[in-house]
Amino acid sequence: MNTELSISTSGAGLYEFTDSLQGWLRGKGDGVVVLLVRHTSASLLVQENADADVQTDLRAFFDRLVPPSDHPDMAYLRHTYEGPDDMPAHIKAAMMPVSLSIPVQEGRAALGTWQGVYLFEHRAQPHRRRVAVSFLGTR
Amino acid sequence: MNTELSISTSGAGLYEFTDSLQGWLRGKGDGVVVLLVRHTSASLLVQENADADVQTDLRAFFDRLVPPSDHPDMAYLRHTYEGPDDMPAHIKAAMMPVSLSIPVQEGRAALGTWQGVYLFEHRAQPHRRRVAVSFLGTR
Amino acid sequence: MNTELSISTSGAGLYEFTDSLQGWLRGKGDGVVVLLVRHTSASLLVQENADADVQTDLRAFFDRLVPPSDHPDMAYLRHTYEGPDDMPAHIKAAMMPVSLSIPVQEGRAALGTWQGVYLFEHRAQPHRRRVAVSFLGTR
Repeated sequence: MNTELSISTSGAGLYEFTDSLQGWLRGKGDGVVVLLVRHTSASLLVQENADADVQTDLRAFFDRLVPPSDHPDMAYLRHTYEGPDDMPAHIKAAMMPVSLSIPVQEGRAALGTWQGVYLFEHRAQPHRRRVAVSFLGTR
Repeated sequence: MNTELSISTSGAGLYEFTDSLQGWLRGKGDGVVVLLVRHTSASLLVQENADADVQTDLRAFFDRLVPPSDHPDMAYLRHTYEGPDDMPAHIKAAMMPVSLSIPVQEGRAALGTWQGVYLFEHRAQPHRRRVAVSFLGTR
Repeated sequence: MNTELSISTSGAGLYEFTDSLQGWLRGKGDGVVVLLVRHTSASLLVQENADADVQTDLRAFFDRLVPPSDHPDMAYLRHTYEGPDDMPAHIKAAMMPVSLSIPVQEGRAALGTWQGVYLFEHRAQPHRRRVAVSFLGTR
């Protein structure tokens, strides 16, 4: 079974969609769910969902590790015509996953207690991000 | 088919569990195995299993790239109340995978000659880590 | 259904194999494709395939983030006997995925418009890289 989830973003940061995913899986039994973000400037993360500071800190760390392309340290970058957040977004999408696979048990993604599923938007402008989702049942 | 593997850790570092995984897959034929570490401060890696120095070097590199939150370079971090290794563990778990999917052929994960499957513990304290595992057969 | 794709590399950099993958999937209907590079010094990426500068920039960024082991910043590394590009290759293969899972719809990997599938070779010498591939259909 396939679906596509749509996630609207309003700037760089983490957007949780655990509830949409668990809702779609309900009633599907045991198996695996596979997700792919169909863009090259966003990532998919399984991350802590208890303290929102974790999300702020994740964004802050990766913004320092991969500065905008108009930063002097990044003067070697060539792919800069879509703006200073463009090439860093591709780098972050290489470093953090664009696809996830998660075991499903009794119609629920088998996440740990503190785990949520997030889209990590790497671009500054608003976007509508599409996530391809497939469920495969074990029989 | 589902199972859960349990891996006891005694400090940060890589813990191989290739044999447990291959043992569970034995007799299962062709398909795919999917793994998820059900925690936000550990990762799953497929890495070289010949020279133990590789594991030491991996840990050393990531400890330098993501220093403890009491290091002056990390003063901007907010999520620090569980100790200086807490937020760096979440960052490492964003940068290195928490889920893996591996083709299975004739009841064996199709790893290369020098590949093993590891849990990478990012916290200093001992933990019992749970890994959700699902096998899906091709028929 | 399983296969193995073989990709010849002639130095570090990204090698696209989207067409080989889509060709093998043709006619297979709906499901999921799972890929594993069977080596510990190469990665698999889903990345932008429009502007070749993105690939040049990705390589340049990761070469700066993970310098050769004969660079003074990397003097702590132990696993150096296979050459200065050896341990950095393992580090890059921890930081960027070695396995991918991608939803398949009507015999095509459900990639976005600008997404291609790449092997990222991290070693300087030529290699023949093997990628294990499994397709699982939904029925």
